[in-house]
Amino acid sequence: MTIYSFDRLQQFALNLFIKIGCSRKQAIEAAQVLLSADLRGVDSHGVARLMGYLRLYEKKRINPQPKLSVIHETPSTAVVDGDAGLGLVAGPYAMRLAIEKAKNVGTGWVAVKNSNHYGIAGYHAMMALKADCIGISMTNASPLVAPTYAKERLLGTNPISVAIPAGEEPPFVADMATTTAANGKLEILQRKNESAPLGWLQDKEGQPTQSAQGVVEGGALLPLGGDRDHGSHKGFILASVVDILSAVLSGANYGPWVPPFVSFLDPNPNPVGEGIGHFFGAIRIDAFRPASEFKNNMDIWIKRFRNAKTINEINKVIIPGDPERHMEQLRRKEGIPLLNNVVKDLQSLSEQYHVKF
Amino acid sequence: MTIYSFDRLQQFALNLFIKIGCSRKQAIEAAQVLLSADLRGVDSHGVARLMGYLRLYEKKRINPQPKLSVIHETPSTAVVDGDAGLGLVAGPYAMRLAIEKAKNVGTGWVAVKNSNHYGIAGYHAMMALKADCIGISMTNASPLVAPTYAKERLLGTNPISVAIPAGEEPPFVADMATTTAANGKLEILQRKNESAPLGWLQDKEGQPTQSAQGVVEGGALLPLGGDRDHGSHKGFILASVVDILSAVLSGANYGPWVPPFVSFLDPNPNPVGEGIGHFFGAIRIDAFRPASEFKNNMDIWIKRFRNAKTINEINKVIIPGDPERHMEQLRRKEGIPLLNNVVKDLQSLSEQYHVKF
Repeated sequence: MTIYSFDRLQQFALNLFIKIGCSRKQAIEAAQVLLSADLRGVDSHGVARLMGYLRLYEKKRINPQPKLSVIHETPSTAVVDGDAGLGLVAGPYAMRLAIEKAKNVGTGWVAVKNSNHYGIAGYHAMMALKADCIGISMTNASPLVAPTYAKERLLGTNPISVAIPAGEEPPFVADMATTTAANGKLEILQRKNESAPLGWLQDKEGQPTQSAQGVVEGGALLPLGGDRDHGSHKGFILASVVDILSAVLSGANYGPWVPPFVSFLDPNPNPVGEGIGHFFGAIRIDAFRPASEFKNNMDIWIKRFRNAKTINEINKVIIPGDPERHMEQLRRKEGIPLLNNVVKDLQSLSEQYHVKF
Repeated sequence: MTIYSFDRLQQFALNLFIKIGCSRKQAIEAAQVLLSADLRGVDSHGVARLMGYLRLYEKKRINPQPKLSVIHETPSTAVVDGDAGLGLVAGPYAMRLAIEKAKNVGTGWVAVKNSNHYGIAGYHAMMALKADCIGISMTNASPLVAPTYAKERLLGTNPISVAIPAGEEPPFVADMATTTAANGKLEILQRKNESAPLGWLQDKEGQPTQSAQGVVEGGALLPLGGDRDHGSHKGFILASVVDILSAVLSGANYGPWVPPFVSFLDPNPNPVGEGIGHFFGAIRIDAFRPASEFKNNMDIWIKRFRNAKTINEINKVIIPGDPERHMEQLRRKEGIPLLNNVVKDLQSLSEQYHVKF
């Protein structure tokens, strides 16, 4: 483990994106989205993914100079073609459009097709906060998850993020995979060679397993709930709705057709759409009630839940977004710790692309 | 258990609503929403609730002659004041408005305050299907659910329904409580004196319990996920988002302030809003892409998931809405079975209100 400053890592990501041909403007934005994951403690989605993005670029599966375009729109909706570029760039473009529409007609909803991985869902949702909007962000992803009763991987971990402004209190920012546990958490156990709780995954025959290697060995992550008795059909519903809004509505690939993030697996030769899909929403608060009234009530809501009577003295009720905000404050000041294998990846990218690390 | 025809039960509910002063138009609609629960097999939300509604009416907590009004709107949004009437009436009113707005500007989003219980979430979401819209419906409810780490009941079972049109295939209709198990399922175990799976509820000290009486004895239902290791913070997030969109956005009561459904418990003397809240959405498909294209792809999606390789021969992957649709076909033909205590309730209402059962 080595600690790097935020500025140094962001500069490296930025220079790397410029090196492969991104415009300066897009590279700045992509690096910012990427680094927000490292800052917020979602280590699996930050610079640890740079190698993955670059390998896809090398396979010509990521276009470094996408021309983003609106291919259809109404006053409150739009479909954006990501032109096979970085989702890190298509995401903010689409979210800005959603916010613009919310300013005009109360809400804005933008579906994106022909995109790639867009970093953490929460970054995009949080863009809405400054405009006094509720922000919503979701994306489909490479199939790793088996529906209830299935032994096939047909869905991604398809996250949902919702960011809601408050007044004196910090905003409510939820960002969750629709599985029992995010793949990033499983990867941590894999590296430590530890076992996973029952309910996180199944083996390739669909049987419960605690082996953290289960997914690598042909098994699957389980939808939130884990099994039927504990509501896994609801996790399946959530992942399905994310898939349909992100991809069936936009014209992207869905379900098992979503292209794999890893470059050593080829996309399905008979796609049902273009690239992967995202879905964004912005809801202007004062399209419902005065923003000040809403924020006062959000403060009451947050305080009441934060101060709930708890089962023990140690664990308080966690308001969504609190842990990530504390982590960001800490890491901006003290730096971002990277695992040795991530450092090695970045060093190897530095040599390969002649970009100073 | 006795079986009654759909027509007979619907006529009884209709006559009862008229007897307490509902307009004929509102009574027809309320009876239809209520009975859709019995048809679809959600027995806890159908005529079994009539006694509950009537007791609230007797306590003057339900206004039989509400004047529904739009108190604020933009091209894609509105807030409706339910005037303390039946949610069974406010729901369809608000959903029609959402669909109208979707026709005009692509999507429509309507928050409702000052309402009461609105029946099954799915009825309202499904209203959008005929208009080639995706329908969304959610509501907050009396506090029965403890957030992760809390021993207080601060949230309702806050359901979410999403209805999505398909082509040759029947629509995708999800309707789920944001708890591990809906309260209705627990009530079935209570009646049978059976124990519940771990992860469904906790006792009044916040400890896991399998006693189905746990909630009655001061315990709480658990958010989807069950415990922190299995993602209960995500169920807490979902229930919170439903609460905030339904009530903080509309001006209804939220969290622990939501008035109890049972008439023997009084509402909080210091409310933070008016009545309970709902939130509805309609997304016009062709505000994104031609409806025929979308529906073709939904057919592919549904067929692929329905035919997924399964773990065993018995359990196939269930497309949301399939079991309820089959139940409705069956019960329209063969009638609706009612438990003896429900029949007794209806007979006693029949005598009290001089309405033929």
